[in-house]
Amino acid sequence: MTENLIIFNARVVTPIGFSARCGKEMGELCIIDNATIEVTDGIISYVGPSRGESRDGYYQRYWHYNARGKCLLPGFVDSHTHFVFGGERAEEFSWRLKGESYMSIMERGGGIVSTVKATRECNFIQLRSKAESFLKQMSAMGVTTVEGKSGYGLDKDTELLQLKVMRSLNNDEHKRVDIVSTFLGAHAVPEEYRGRTDEYIDFIIRDVLPCVAKGELAEFCDVFCEQGVFSVEQSRRLLQAAKEYGLGLKLHADEIVPLGGAELAAELSAVSADHLLHASDEGIRAMRDAGTVATLLPLTAFALKENYARGREMIDAGCAVALATDLNPGSCFSGSIPLTFALACIYMQLTIEEAITALTLNGAAALNRADSIGSIEVGKKGDFVVLNTDNYHFLPYYVGMNCVNTTIKEGVIYPVL
Amino acid sequence: MTENLIIFNARVVTPIGFSARCGKEMGELCIIDNATIEVTDGIISYVGPSRGESRDGYYQRYWHYNARGKCLLPGFVDSHTHFVFGGERAEEFSWRLKGESYMSIMERGGGIVSTVKATRECNFIQLRSKAESFLKQMSAMGVTTVEGKSGYGLDKDTELLQLKVMRSLNNDEHKRVDIVSTFLGAHAVPEEYRGRTDEYIDFIIRDVLPCVAKGELAEFCDVFCEQGVFSVEQSRRLLQAAKEYGLGLKLHADEIVPLGGAELAAELSAVSADHLLHASDEGIRAMRDAGTVATLLPLTAFALKENYARGREMIDAGCAVALATDLNPGSCFSGSIPLTFALACIYMQLTIEEAITALTLNGAAALNRADSIGSIEVGKKGDFVVLNTDNYHFLPYYVGMNCVNTTIKEGVIYPVL
Ligand SMILES: [Zn+2]
Ligand SMILES: [Zn+2]
Repeated sequence: MTENLIIFNARVVTPIGFSARCGKEMGELCIIDNATIEVTDGIISYVGPSRGESRDGYYQRYWHYNARGKCLLPGFVDSHTHFVFGGERAEEFSWRLKGESYMSIMERGGGIVSTVKATRECNFIQLRSKAESFLKQMSAMGVTTVEGKSGYGLDKDTELLQLKVMRSLNNDEHKRVDIVSTFLGAHAVPEEYRGRTDEYIDFIIRDVLPCVAKGELAEFCDVFCEQGVFSVEQSRRLLQAAKEYGLGLKLHADEIVPLGGAELAAELSAVSADHLLHASDEGIRAMRDAGTVATLLPLTAFALKENYARGREMIDAGCAVALATDLNPGSCFSGSIPLTFALACIYMQLTIEEAITALTLNGAAALNRADSIGSIEVGKKGDFVVLNTDNYHFLPYYVGMNCVNTTIKEGVIYPVL
Repeated sequence: MTENLIIFNARVVTPIGFSARCGKEMGELCIIDNATIEVTDGIISYVGPSRGESRDGYYQRYWHYNARGKCLLPGFVDSHTHFVFGGERAEEFSWRLKGESYMSIMERGGGIVSTVKATRECNFIQLRSKAESFLKQMSAMGVTTVEGKSGYGLDKDTELLQLKVMRSLNNDEHKRVDIVSTFLGAHAVPEEYRGRTDEYIDFIIRDVLPCVAKGELAEFCDVFCEQGVFSVEQSRRLLQAAKEYGLGLKLHADEIVPLGGAELAAELSAVSADHLLHASDEGIRAMRDAGTVATLLPLTAFALKENYARGREMIDAGCAVALATDLNPGSCFSGSIPLTFALACIYMQLTIEEAITALTLNGAAALNRADSIGSIEVGKKGDFVVLNTDNYHFLPYYVGMNCVNTTIKEGVIYPVL
């Protein structure tokens, strides 16, 4: 659904550009006080000073919205989540509180395996209604575009089912959040293939990828490239096959040990490499040179008590950094945009302006969408966040608390409070 | 406002008792599945198995609420906040992001001084409407009782004004949150008394305390006992005077350096000592022996990148530990109950059950109200939180995210979503 909308009296706060911003650019925001924004059929058709409110009846075909001087930002782009799944893992969380490591829990049959079991037991309706409840919460925190991954099926039918759930949600006329789908069949090695990782990769390439591509069920292919899961070589083989099917590439890279995932992402011109807690200096430089977005997921590090990725150093090295939530039932059961801002600014030394760029334009770039979303510019979607303050510093300052007053999706207004 | 209410089909999750729980008791919750709760005139009149839904017309005078098997806990008690203030300090927050310390910001004229200036410039209506907006957010996170402190006036009129704002909010018939007022005139030394701290204490004792007591404007007196602010001796002098006026005692203790605030709290039989990041072993033992509640404020440590208070050790030593948010415009602009749970369980090694006790019964004890709120027992207020899950582990597991479906205040139902 799209609308015609005129927004008056907004304090526009936005990065500018049609590709990822990197290095010093990330800290540069464009701020326009008392701005008018016109959205026509869901697309921004004007941003700038007021043009006079009642020009020749033109405005009568538009909804009107008075932002009352509050900050208006591009809708947030959460470019890395796993929001379609069955079950939950609250018990595993309590094991972790008692000190068990993520890898040890995986070895013990917890971890992804338990979500795979629960997801395989769900039907379409069950997966969809659960996923939909997350979308509502995202919208209330200002998210207007989310990436979602499969990867809790690890068999052909369930992987495709997860992707179909996302397609269905994305086709909903009343959706508040656009969904970008990523095929993550190589999220883990399923029980049936234990000890036969290469055969599982063969299976994905031979039996699942073609269906994903043929059904246009995903735009990206991702892989969990990590010691004990998928090696650099196995990841490369899968991603090269995906590339031949026309899919964009993403990697879960260097989360637990420095395996060379960042380097692989650069080598394959992946659109993003994600996590990167242990990315090497060479990996960071290679990503910068390849234009691969470094997507950092501080909520996961927070929940796992890991050290945060070196976001400050990556930006200083000239990388384009995006921030995302990693919402998933295991390592990071959180989609909190406010907490993401707080962690980025307080614990990763990003400036507030860099964090905003990371959650808008650079998130868009991590989804190959910097040309259509992520900033407030003519020709882009009319996706906005209106804060309940005229000071965008509140985003991290109001620690862990939501300061979104209204989310606007393609010109349609959704009040939060 | 109070109501008659019958709640059906709840999973009751509650500590039990009419005083603070300490040591191992903190981890013991009472869980009753498929419970019925009756609230009569706002007071719990029955908790237990269903008594039959249509006994002799009795139930017809009651509102009915079906909890559908979800967890029902006592309303959360946030026993330490500073929610009545003018202005904000987003700029100071960005200074801190750049590495300045709390004490250095205070010395530079930021910190409390700037909020004092803004608060003195506000009138009753301005302070009240701003404070009221925080109460709404608290209620949405399940808080049914909050403590609020003065301390941003540091002169007679403004200190009394802050307390009157709280009284007015507490007298509102439609309030969703009960307010307990604390006089914190000794929050800082105002400019006018710079270098004359003892004279400021004299002034408070002579000119302000009597008005607070006479007007019954506060139930507690608190002091910021910290190096460079109020010494142990000055704090003792003030609190002894407050005790003579019948006020209960609280301390901001050992937050920045180990000054002996915990020991002083025990010596004076204070109801609580708060912060305690640097409390000594002897201080902890003294608090245990005196029955002084140790109120920990992890959001502040999180926002300031401090180490957390030794909550695990305090509980193991037999202390009664409460958790609170410390909501204030400077060191901790956050009232996030979800993030408080996450920090307590992930970063302070409290069990989930201990954290629940700390935010309910022990919070009540820190306000001298363990006999009337903080657990689900006959005779206590009908103040509840209904989660949107049957698993209370979600409180920390859904990291930083609100899983409160409905808040019930003295039998009145307030849906959150
Ligand atoms: Zn992930
Ligand atoms: Zn305080």
